[in-house]
Amino acid sequence: MSDNEEKKEIKPQKGDDGSLYFELDDKKRVSVRKFKGKIYVDIREFYEKDGEMLPGKKGISLNLQNWEQFRNLIDNIDSCIVDI
Amino acid sequence: MSDNEEKKEIKPQKGDDGSLYFELDDKKRVSVRKFKGKIYVDIREFYEKDGEMLPGKKGISLNLQNWEQFRNLIDNIDSCIVDI
Repeated sequence: MSDNEEKKEIKPQKGDDGSLYFELDDKKRVSVRKFKGKIYVDIREFYEKDGEMLPGKKGISLNLQNWEQFRNLIDNIDSCIVDI
Repeated sequence: MSDNEEKKEIKPQKGDDGSLYFELDDKKRVSVRKFKGKIYVDIREFYEKDGEMLPGKKGISLNLQNWEQFRNLIDNIDSCIVDI
């Protein structure tokens, strides 16, 4: 199986608020959500309360302009990780 | 000029704390920093105080495992943006 095919198998989960999300670990999620007609990519820590996962304070919402900029920087960020 | 060459031109800036960072907009930054010997990718809002840019509360620190997972999800996140 190629890398490409493997990637396609990752399906998002559906959040209670209608968002689509992926887990980065057992607490952190990347969610795509619509708010007042605009789409945001939200990277956030969640915490458990009464068996439910709730969004915590630690996190940030990126608008689509931020997201586009972020995507373009991925390789540069990787270079920093090597250089620092 | 190819896309590849264009990308290489984006150089990180150096933060006061020795981190390397890129701006997502006038307030949001993606920083690569080392803390207690471990590397983190921090996505955060900054605010201005006395002409200085200071890190705000809105943000999240990703460890390298989170970052690796995040990178693998980029295309899937883009698909969610189209689907939602």
